[in-house]
Amino acid sequence: MRASAPSDLGDSAGPVAPGPGAVAALWPLSPDQARLDTGGLLGRWQRRNAEDTLPHCVDNLHHAGNIGNLRAAAGESDAAFAGMWFADSDVHKTLEAAAWELGTSSGDEALRSFVEDTVALLARAQQADGYLNSYFTVVAPDERWRKPDWSHELYCAGHLFQAAVAAARTGVSPALVAVARRFADLLVERFGPGGVEEVCGHPEIETALAELYRLTGHRPYLDLARRFLDLRGRGLLGHGRFGPAYYQDHVPVREAREVTGHAVRQLYLLAGMVDVGAETGDHVLLDAAERLWEDAVHRRSYVTGAHGSRHREEAYGDPYELPPDRAYAETCAAIASVHANWRLLLATGRARYADEMERALYNAVAAAVSSDGRHFFYSNPLQLRTGHASSGEEAASRRLPWYSCACCPPNIARLMASLHGYLATAHDDGLQIHLYASGSVNAEVAGAAVRLDVRTEYPWQGRIELTVTSETAATWTLALRVPAWCDAYTVRIDGGPVMAPARDGYIRLTRAWAPGTTVVLDLEMPVRQVSAHPRVDAVRGCVALARGPLVYCLEQADLPPGTVLEDVRLDPAAPITSGHREDLPDIPVVINAGGLVARTGDSLYATGIRRERPGTSFALTAVPYFMWGNRSEGPMRVWIPVAATE
Amino acid sequence: MRASAPSDLGDSAGPVAPGPGAVAALWPLSPDQARLDTGGLLGRWQRRNAEDTLPHCVDNLHHAGNIGNLRAAAGESDAAFAGMWFADSDVHKTLEAAAWELGTSSGDEALRSFVEDTVALLARAQQADGYLNSYFTVVAPDERWRKPDWSHELYCAGHLFQAAVAAARTGVSPALVAVARRFADLLVERFGPGGVEEVCGHPEIETALAELYRLTGHRPYLDLARRFLDLRGRGLLGHGRFGPAYYQDHVPVREAREVTGHAVRQLYLLAGMVDVGAETGDHVLLDAAERLWEDAVHRRSYVTGAHGSRHREEAYGDPYELPPDRAYAETCAAIASVHANWRLLLATGRARYADEMERALYNAVAAAVSSDGRHFFYSNPLQLRTGHASSGEEAASRRLPWYSCACCPPNIARLMASLHGYLATAHDDGLQIHLYASGSVNAEVAGAAVRLDVRTEYPWQGRIELTVTSETAATWTLALRVPAWCDAYTVRIDGGPVMAPARDGYIRLTRAWAPGTTVVLDLEMPVRQVSAHPRVDAVRGCVALARGPLVYCLEQADLPPGTVLEDVRLDPAAPITSGHREDLPDIPVVINAGGLVARTGDSLYATGIRRERPGTSFALTAVPYFMWGNRSEGPMRVWIPVAATE
Repeated sequence: MRASAPSDLGDSAGPVAPGPGAVAALWPLSPDQARLDTGGLLGRWQRRNAEDTLPHCVDNLHHAGNIGNLRAAAGESDAAFAGMWFADSDVHKTLEAAAWELGTSSGDEALRSFVEDTVALLARAQQADGYLNSYFTVVAPDERWRKPDWSHELYCAGHLFQAAVAAARTGVSPALVAVARRFADLLVERFGPGGVEEVCGHPEIETALAELYRLTGHRPYLDLARRFLDLRGRGLLGHGRFGPAYYQDHVPVREAREVTGHAVRQLYLLAGMVDVGAETGDHVLLDAAERLWEDAVHRRSYVTGAHGSRHREEAYGDPYELPPDRAYAETCAAIASVHANWRLLLATGRARYADEMERALYNAVAAAVSSDGRHFFYSNPLQLRTGHASSGEEAASRRLPWYSCACCPPNIARLMASLHGYLATAHDDGLQIHLYASGSVNAEVAGAAVRLDVRTEYPWQGRIELTVTSETAATWTLALRVPAWCDAYTVRIDGGPVMAPARDGYIRLTRAWAPGTTVVLDLEMPVRQVSAHPRVDAVRGCVALARGPLVYCLEQADLPPGTVLEDVRLDPAAPITSGHREDLPDIPVVINAGGLVARTGDSLYATGIRRERPGTSFALTAVPYFMWGNRSEGPMRVWIPVAATE
Repeated sequence: MRASAPSDLGDSAGPVAPGPGAVAALWPLSPDQARLDTGGLLGRWQRRNAEDTLPHCVDNLHHAGNIGNLRAAAGESDAAFAGMWFADSDVHKTLEAAAWELGTSSGDEALRSFVEDTVALLARAQQADGYLNSYFTVVAPDERWRKPDWSHELYCAGHLFQAAVAAARTGVSPALVAVARRFADLLVERFGPGGVEEVCGHPEIETALAELYRLTGHRPYLDLARRFLDLRGRGLLGHGRFGPAYYQDHVPVREAREVTGHAVRQLYLLAGMVDVGAETGDHVLLDAAERLWEDAVHRRSYVTGAHGSRHREEAYGDPYELPPDRAYAETCAAIASVHANWRLLLATGRARYADEMERALYNAVAAAVSSDGRHFFYSNPLQLRTGHASSGEEAASRRLPWYSCACCPPNIARLMASLHGYLATAHDDGLQIHLYASGSVNAEVAGAAVRLDVRTEYPWQGRIELTVTSETAATWTLALRVPAWCDAYTVRIDGGPVMAPARDGYIRLTRAWAPGTTVVLDLEMPVRQVSAHPRVDAVRGCVALARGPLVYCLEQADLPPGTVLEDVRLDPAAPITSGHREDLPDIPVVINAGGLVARTGDSLYATGIRRERPGTSFALTAVPYFMWGNRSEGPMRVWIPVAATE
C-alpha cells in the first residue's frame, strides 16, 4: 500500500509524521486539522489533562527535584541529585506534553513559561560537546557512556528529541530543536558509522531519531536509528543479572518472532522498527514488527489492551500467561502500545491496529488516571483481591500522586495532549476516521479542503453523527472504522439508510459530498460477554463484561454489604442490560446482571471435584474498568466466574 | 499438653531438642534412635544425599569461592571475595549437613576431613572479638553491623550456630561449639539487654540461638533470641525499597495474623517463635505461631506444600493468590516449612503439622532435587508452559547444578541428612510414628527400652509393617499417624484385625508389646482428584491428581506427539487407575486417566462463552510431581482442566 503525502503535512504535524518517501498507507493529520471538544469523553480527558495532569506534572518536576537536577547540571545549583538517574526523561516528556497542549489551546501562560524556562535551562545544562544528561553531568561524569545496559542516556536523549519535535511541529518552541540537534550530532559522531557499536538498554532513541529526521530531513539521524536497530540482537547487552532477552537483544530485530523481556522497552523498540522500516522502505523490518505485534496481541496481552504479565522484570510472560491479579500491565506499556499501533496503522492501513489502539486507550491507559487527573497507577491489574497488601508503589491498591520512578504520569500527559492526532488520517482519496469523538476534522483531500464535524456520545452510545461542513462538493471517500467488537451497525446519509458493508474493518462512502451532508453511523452496543482463549488458565470459567470499546469490572463498592468479591458469580440465566442509573450519577452507563454469592467452604484443598452450591442471588452491577478505584479503595475484578448451570 | 523429657535426650539429639522445661507435647528422638534404610524412599533420598548432594555441595563451596572467602578472612589468601555477601551461610549449612550425615553413617573420610578442615578454618577466620563473617571481614569491615536490613550478619551467625549444634549433638566436631559461642557471646554483649535495639533483616538467628541455648544451657542465648522477637514489629527495618512487611517487621510478632513478605524469612521467623515460645512457656507466642500457620496453610500455600506465590520479593501473595505457573515456591521455603511444622508438632502434638510436613517433604522439597542428587530447582512452579522462556536462575525450566545465590542446595543437604530425625517422637506413654519409611526406631518409653522395625514401600504403597523387636514386654502406646489424605485403613496385629479408630489424626495402640509382635497398618491409597478453594482463581475448573502423600503432574514426555499440554483436559468420564508401567521403569507408580485434546481456536479474546468441543481422546499418564523434569525438559502441569460434561 502506498499513498502520496498530503502537501500540507510537514512543518505542522502531530506525533509521527512519515516523510514523503515513506511506506505509508495512511497519512496523519496535523494538530490543527483535528480537534476534540469537551462534548465527548476524549475531549474531556484532554481538557482534564491540560487543567490538572499537566500542571500537576510540572509541579512535581519541581518538587521531586528533576528541574533542580538540570539547574545543578547548568552549574546554577549545588543541590544533591534527586530521583532516578533517568529523571531528565520526565522533564522531556512533560515538555513534549506541554508542546502538544499549547499547539491546540489558546495558551496557558504558566505552561508557556514552563516551556520557555525549561528549554532555556536545558540549553544551559547542555555541555559544550552537545551532551545533555543531568545525572551523568552532575553525579557520575566518569561514567558517561560507560553503562549502556543501565544508563538510559540514549533513552533520555530520545525523549529530549521527541519533545523538540513536538515543540517544533507545534511552533511552540523551535529553539529546543537546536539543543536536540547538538546532542543528536554528538550521537551520530560517537555511535554512527565507524563509531562505537553499542545500543541502549532502554529503546526509545530509535523512534525519536526517526522523528527528528522527519522534522529536519537530516539523513544521518535516520541512519543512526537504523544502525541501532541493526546492532540489536548481537548480545551487546545483558551480561549481568538480566539476560539479553530482557533488553530484546537476544536475536536480531528482523528475526524476532516473540515479544520478550521488559514490555515498555519491547514496545518502544517496536515503534522504532516501524518508523525506521517505513522511512527506509525496509519491509523485512516492517514484517518483523507485524509479527511481533501478532505475538503480543494474540498471546500475551490483556483484554484491557495492557501488556506485561510479570512484576518481575516488568516483563512479558510466557504465551497465555495472563494473570489478572498479578498483571503488571504498566501504564507506560499501554501508552507504548498506542504509539506502536498508530505507527503500524499508518504504515499498513490495517484496522486491527486501530482496534488495538482503541482497546488500550479506553481501558489500560484510561484506568491509569484518576477522575481528578492528579493520581496515577503505575501497574494496572485486572483484579484486586480482598486482603490485598500493597508491596511497594508498583502494586498500589490506589492511584498515587507521584512515583519515585515517575515515568508514567508525564507519559500519560503527552499522550492525552496529542490525542486529537490519533483520530483520523488522510489518504489520496479521502478521510479515514479511526476513533470516534466529538470534534472536527479537516484535511486537503483529492485537491479539495474538506471538513467534518463529529458529534457522538461514544463510547457510551454507538451513534456517531458526522456532518460535512466544507463548502466544496468534491468527490472523496469517507472511511469509517467498524470496530472489531461491533457485530451490527447501520448507516444513514441525510436520514436515508444506505447499504455500507465494511471491508477490512472500514465502511467506505464515496460521493461528491455537498456541504451539510450528514452521515449517521449507528454501532450497536449490546453488552458482550467476552471469553479468553482456553490456554489462559488464569481466567478459566470466567467472562469479562464489555460494551463498545469499554471493558467493565466489578467493584466492592457495588456489592451487598459483607459480600466477598471472590465469592461472586455471574448468573448465566439472568438477563444482562445496560443503562444509566440515578444512584451512580458519575457513571454514564453501567451494566446490570445477575449475581450469585457462592458458598465456598473453608478448606484450601480437598478431595473431590467441588460443585459450588448456588447461593444468594443479587443484582450485579459492573462499572467501566477505567473508572475503578475512584469511589473508594477496595477489591475489583474484570473476569467474573460464571456460575455452573444446573 | 505437657510431657516430661526422656532422660536420654540431651547431648545426643537431632535438630530441635526442647529443653526439659519446654512446652512440648512430644519429644524428638536422638539421631541414634531412628534409622532409615535404603529399602524405602526416604532412606534412598538420604543415601543419595550422602553420596551425591553433599560431596557436590562441598565441591561447589570450593569452586564458587566460599571456602576461599574464609581463607581470605583468615589472612591466608588474597583472592577477591566471591559470591553473595552471605556466602558463609552456605558453608555453615553444608557443615550442618555433614554433621548430621556423619552422625548416622560409619563415616566418609572425605566428608570428615571437610568438617575438620572447615571448622579449623572458621576458627582461624574468626576475629579476636568473636566476630565471624568473611564478607564484612574482608570486603567491608567498616560496614560491620551497619546494615541490619541487608547484611545477613545475624543470619549467617545463625547458620553457624546450627552447624555447631549439629556437630556437637552428633559428636562429630564439638570444637565448632567454641567458635559459635565466642560469636554468640559477642552478640549477647552487643544486642543483649542494654545493647543496641536491632534485628536482622533475614530471620534465622532466633531459632539458632534457641538451639544453641538448648545445647549449652546458657540462658543469655535464649534471652537474646526472645529479645530479637520482642524487638520485631517496631519498624526497625524496611525504610528502603522494601517495606517493613517484607521483613515481617510491620507488626509485633505476637500480634501478627497474616504471613507476609519474603516467605523464607517468614517461616524461619515462625520456627524461632515456636522455639522461643516453647522454651520460655510463652503461649501467646505459640498461639501467634499457630495463627500464622493457619493463614499460610489455609490461604497461601500450594497443594505441593510450597510457600511463596510471588517472584517479586520472593513473597507470599494475597489470600488465595496461588498461580501455578508463576509460583515462586522457593525450595528453602518448603524446607523452612518442614522445620516450622516439626517444631509445631513437638510443641502441640497436633497431627495437622505432621500432615503439612509430609506434604512439603514429598512434593515441594523432593521436587527440588534431581534424581542424580546434583541438580536443583530454586523455584518450584506447579506449571511450566509451552514456550516457557527462563528469565534468570529463579525461573529455570530445568534443575541447575548451582546458583549464584546457592542457599537451596546446602539447605536440601542439611534436611536430607537429618531426615531420620523427623520420623517419630516419644511421649511418656509411648512412641509416635509420623512419617512412614523403612527403618527402625527405638526409645526409652515408660521406663523400658523399646524398638520397632518398620518395613514399607510407602509412599508407593500404603502397607506399613511395624515389628516390635525389643526384648521387653512393657506396656506402652504405639501411635500411628493416619494422614489427612487417608479416608480408609485397616490395622492388624499379628495378622488379626483390630478396631483402631483414629483420634486427632493418630491410631493409638496400647498393650504390653511382646517381642516379635507385628502391626500392619494398611492405608488405602486410591487416586484422589484434589480441588482447590474456589477463591483460588488460578486453578478454577481444574483438579490435581494425588495418591497417598504424592501430588502428580502431567509432563510433555507422556503426551502423544504434537499435543500441546495446555490443550489437554481430564476426561471426567474415564476411569482413573494407578500402577507400575513397564515402559516407565524408573517411576514406581503412575496414574492412568483419560485425556482429551481440546480444540481451542485461535483468538485470544472473543465474544461469547466458549464451549470447548471435545477432541481426540487419549490415555493420560500422570507422574509424581517430585520426579518431573528428570526425563527431559518440557512443559508440565499439576492442575489439570477438567473437560466439561455434555
